[in-house]
Amino acid sequence: MQKIEINSGKEMDVLRKAAFVVTDQNLYGIYGALLPKDTFVVPAGEGSKTLYYVEKIASELLRRGVKRTDTIAAFGGGMVGDLVGFAASVYMRGVRWSFVPTSLLAMSDSSIGGKTAVNVGKIKNAVGSFWLPDTYIETKYLSTLPKSEYESGMGEIVKTSLLDGELYSLMHGEFNEVEAIKKCVSIKSEIVSRDMTDKGARKVLNMGHTVGHAIELLSGLSHGKCVLIGMRLEMLMLRDLIPHSFFYEAQSYLGRFIGNGAIDFCADDVAKIAQNDKKNGNGISIMYPCGIGDVKEAVLSGDEFTRLIKGAL
Amino acid sequence: MQKIEINSGKEMDVLRKAAFVVTDQNLYGIYGALLPKDTFVVPAGEGSKTLYYVEKIASELLRRGVKRTDTIAAFGGGMVGDLVGFAASVYMRGVRWSFVPTSLLAMSDSSIGGKTAVNVGKIKNAVGSFWLPDTYIETKYLSTLPKSEYESGMGEIVKTSLLDGELYSLMHGEFNEVEAIKKCVSIKSEIVSRDMTDKGARKVLNMGHTVGHAIELLSGLSHGKCVLIGMRLEMLMLRDLIPHSFFYEAQSYLGRFIGNGAIDFCADDVAKIAQNDKKNGNGISIMYPCGIGDVKEAVLSGDEFTRLIKGAL
Repeated sequence: MQKIEINSGKEMDVLRKAAFVVTDQNLYGIYGALLPKDTFVVPAGEGSKTLYYVEKIASELLRRGVKRTDTIAAFGGGMVGDLVGFAASVYMRGVRWSFVPTSLLAMSDSSIGGKTAVNVGKIKNAVGSFWLPDTYIETKYLSTLPKSEYESGMGEIVKTSLLDGELYSLMHGEFNEVEAIKKCVSIKSEIVSRDMTDKGARKVLNMGHTVGHAIELLSGLSHGKCVLIGMRLEMLMLRDLIPHSFFYEAQSYLGRFIGNGAIDFCADDVAKIAQNDKKNGNGISIMYPCGIGDVKEAVLSGDEFTRLIKGAL
Repeated sequence: MQKIEINSGKEMDVLRKAAFVVTDQNLYGIYGALLPKDTFVVPAGEGSKTLYYVEKIASELLRRGVKRTDTIAAFGGGMVGDLVGFAASVYMRGVRWSFVPTSLLAMSDSSIGGKTAVNVGKIKNAVGSFWLPDTYIETKYLSTLPKSEYESGMGEIVKTSLLDGELYSLMHGEFNEVEAIKKCVSIKSEIVSRDMTDKGARKVLNMGHTVGHAIELLSGLSHGKCVLIGMRLEMLMLRDLIPHSFFYEAQSYLGRFIGNGAIDFCADDVAKIAQNDKKNGNGISIMYPCGIGDVKEAVLSGDEFTRLIKGAL
């Protein structure tokens, strides 16, 4: 079971006690004075999520004499967490790690469940592991998060709300950041506990991701926003399989967060990326909601996918 | 439980069915015509056991569209196995792999138990994982193994024989390669099954490795030979803790395989490397035999280690 604390105020203690702390340049610029003096700083952005930086981190861990019984730590958003978590999972065949997430996306999603990864060439998360951190969420760090990144985090929260009636209700009142994060953490933890290595139950979390990931590559929009656009398009593709009343309710709900303007992408480009992305040989999987907490899977051939995305776009 | 077959004759079938096969240039020169046409060939030697080659392999896996449900394969000695096993453990967060070991060391030791790793700078196995292959041992491939590598494999077999009366007896008759490998496989499998992630029982396999690894770095002699020299020196260091009759018996037994000539290394150099190597903060661990199948641990401070190795050299 993953250890997760929310607003317990222990995060700086945890970082001080860690054998090694990593953050990125942006965060170091803001919080450098609070972090341990020998904090290791990587450039901000996806460019650091590579095996090259895993090697840099491992070299530095060796230079500092970090042992397999030590704990290392990440202070940052999803990129820093993915990189440090992966390095922790392989350094000396695995050391413990703690994660202090600073983005809304990392607090509500990526700091839970232990997925770590780096990119290979242009392919995101091509190499990675399952390696749980102890997670210390402190929502005060959201105060310095850029608006576009905050919106990205909202995307995963909105997606998660379709899995759970309580969170869905919560999202219809005045937005309570802390309560929403707490619910996301408990929903995701429960799903992950049934499927640590992503073989079954965890699939429901992929709602919006099949089309969303293609949109992300084509548009450069934020991950969370693309997940919502992806979910909207996936529901349009499969509308015949979704109860009418829920279809309209969900489309209008998603529209609140992404706007109701036209979504314009080349269907063939989306289809091509989805075809390349598919993680197994059995076709392109789409997870789609038929009601709150009621997620089903459609597995499409490349041709079916192309036909349906053309109809949706 | 790891799947291990010995001389079942299935290995080429396994390689043909794998989505991706890796070997090294030396082996490709000998067996290239038998291997699948699109076998991926890395340079022979430790220089390929790096994250750089993990990235090369991952890129190639992506280029060929290898999925997370596919199986990849290694044909080679310890280096190829360590590299491919590590790549398999992290590509798409883990794909299955098969290992056809071609060296005596890999057949009797490194193809069992799922330790994978690559080097970081000069530090061996600094980054790695535990990821079990299906192992297909075919002893016919030993016919092309260089003599020095054969001797290296003998080192690990001799070490293992101190853990088991039956293998120890076997080693006192005419050497039967296949029987010795079979015994090593069953002894190591049993130990690994009690301690997959190297937290306890597996420690007995480290006999000879604390001093042996330092000797390996200082001398450039083969791994297996250094393990035997290391075991001999470790027993000399701790002779007061070992029953006299067993001490003399084991020293003479080890001498049969490494010769009884003088062993001449700078004690301070050995101590320095052992100090750097220690995997946790509790001192330098030495596993030493007190009888066949009776292994104990001594944990020494840096000063104690230096004093004792000076006495032994």
